[in-house]
Amino acid sequence: MKMGSSSIAEYIKTCSEQLNRHLRQSFPSDWHIDPTLKEAMEYSLFAGGKRLRPILVLAAAEAAGGEADAAMPVACAIEMVHTYSLIHDDLPAMDDDDYRRGRPTNHKVFGDGMAILAGDALLTHAFFCAAQIAKDGRVPAERALAVIEELAMYAGARGMVGGQAADLKGKQGLTKLEDLESIHLRKTGDLIVFSLRAGGRIGGATDDQLAALERFGYDIGLAFQIQDDVLNVIGDEKKLGKPVKSDEKRNKATYPYFVGVEESKRSVERLTRRSKEAIERAGFPRPERLLEIADYLMKRDH
Amino acid sequence: MKMGSSSIAEYIKTCSEQLNRHLRQSFPSDWHIDPTLKEAMEYSLFAGGKRLRPILVLAAAEAAGGEADAAMPVACAIEMVHTYSLIHDDLPAMDDDDYRRGRPTNHKVFGDGMAILAGDALLTHAFFCAAQIAKDGRVPAERALAVIEELAMYAGARGMVGGQAADLKGKQGLTKLEDLESIHLRKTGDLIVFSLRAGGRIGGATDDQLAALERFGYDIGLAFQIQDDVLNVIGDEKKLGKPVKSDEKRNKATYPYFVGVEESKRSVERLTRRSKEAIERAGFPRPERLLEIADYLMKRDH
Repeated sequence: MKMGSSSIAEYIKTCSEQLNRHLRQSFPSDWHIDPTLKEAMEYSLFAGGKRLRPILVLAAAEAAGGEADAAMPVACAIEMVHTYSLIHDDLPAMDDDDYRRGRPTNHKVFGDGMAILAGDALLTHAFFCAAQIAKDGRVPAERALAVIEELAMYAGARGMVGGQAADLKGKQGLTKLEDLESIHLRKTGDLIVFSLRAGGRIGGATDDQLAALERFGYDIGLAFQIQDDVLNVIGDEKKLGKPVKSDEKRNKATYPYFVGVEESKRSVERLTRRSKEAIERAGFPRPERLLEIADYLMKRDH
Repeated sequence: MKMGSSSIAEYIKTCSEQLNRHLRQSFPSDWHIDPTLKEAMEYSLFAGGKRLRPILVLAAAEAAGGEADAAMPVACAIEMVHTYSLIHDDLPAMDDDDYRRGRPTNHKVFGDGMAILAGDALLTHAFFCAAQIAKDGRVPAERALAVIEELAMYAGARGMVGGQAADLKGKQGLTKLEDLESIHLRKTGDLIVFSLRAGGRIGGATDDQLAALERFGYDIGLAFQIQDDVLNVIGDEKKLGKPVKSDEKRNKATYPYFVGVEESKRSVERLTRRSKEAIERAGFPRPERLLEIADYLMKRDH
């Protein structure tokens, strides 16, 4: 990918298009897949997501001085994990959401059973994709194994799924901001941190640089989630593709619920500033895109 | 594991005990896991399963001339995948089962949402475990990656999950024995074949021996499933831990439904004989346990 001088919006668009091409070809052509299952998987995989996590994989690989192309299988993998988590999260047994990004949720179209299976299949296939990074010899097998191990760690019981379990239990009513932050860090932060560390590792980052990517990731992840909460209060329904003030109606514990909209906005700015400092100090050969993404996320309106 | 002269029942017992010890320690000790999530995962992981798949991993590693210990992380991984599939399969949106092995199913104890998450966490953690086989240097990283790739292939959309999707769609009524067999091959056969190929690969099997393990696996897998169907008609409720004739009551398409109990029994014998021939012809250094397991499965009454 040669896009050194393009704007961040163009960069994100180009990354997304390349990602979509790879996602469309992620099954080997000689595999027979049940057509309904495949349709259910692709319905959510191509539902207009922001592609934040895969873009972070690619940008982190570039920041560390590597080639974004080598990291593409992991970019596909993390988008599959993210997508599966949304499908399962929307189920009646979890958040019970009928719409996502303005379209009916997976289980509303394919039924609860097929939605569960589509999620299971996406999660499983993510590991197949991740295992491909060592295939052409660009990434050593040991490094590929480390990426797979971290994917399981950040996405599983210790990470994202653990955050969802805490969230599920917390639906009875969170009373402290710290508990909310702890859930956000795992539900959103862990996959973002994985994306950055995996990209960095593939690109040849040092241990110190991986640690900086981790700090950057938790900060922009939390900022991202707070921004989501803020937009749910003051955002534009058309741009968001979902009703605003839905959190309030459900009496959901959010950042604005605890500290108000203005203080929430200041937290987003503070976290974004701190996240960029971590990257700036870590001596990356090409940190520009990561820094631009942090600013871009802070300013988004959907 | 030194058990060259023990009976097959003793061998299975020893394997199961060693497996249980490893399963209990599968999370690194410094990981914080949500206690309810962990409880839900362990409730099903230690629910008295037969441990068929992990035992096949260990026996195949031995058959190929390797050490069973080196394959233990994959034995844990496949039992986690099998367990997650049962948890999700029992959900109201799928088979809607209240009991399994005489105990309430996961979602009856922990709720549908937590059961979905426990399954997701087990599936994810299986890949963490599988990635451990290269850790102590006994298995080369390239071989570990091949095992992970096959786990994703046999467990995912092309394999087990694909079989479950076809099964879910087929609930409206299967009309052909071939369709039933095709579902069995994927729902049960694929994980069994993975177990054998992974164990064989870790033990150093040749490509021809891996192919023989695959034929063996599909045959004993189908025999296993037919035997399950037969026991559902003529078995002992106490030994099975579940009501007999439940398939008939649900009007479920089974092997006996298509060809009758006697012909089903003959199929089990025929498949078992053929499965053993594949192993006998492949020149394994220590094939005995695999052959004994095939006979043991054919004669089981639960």
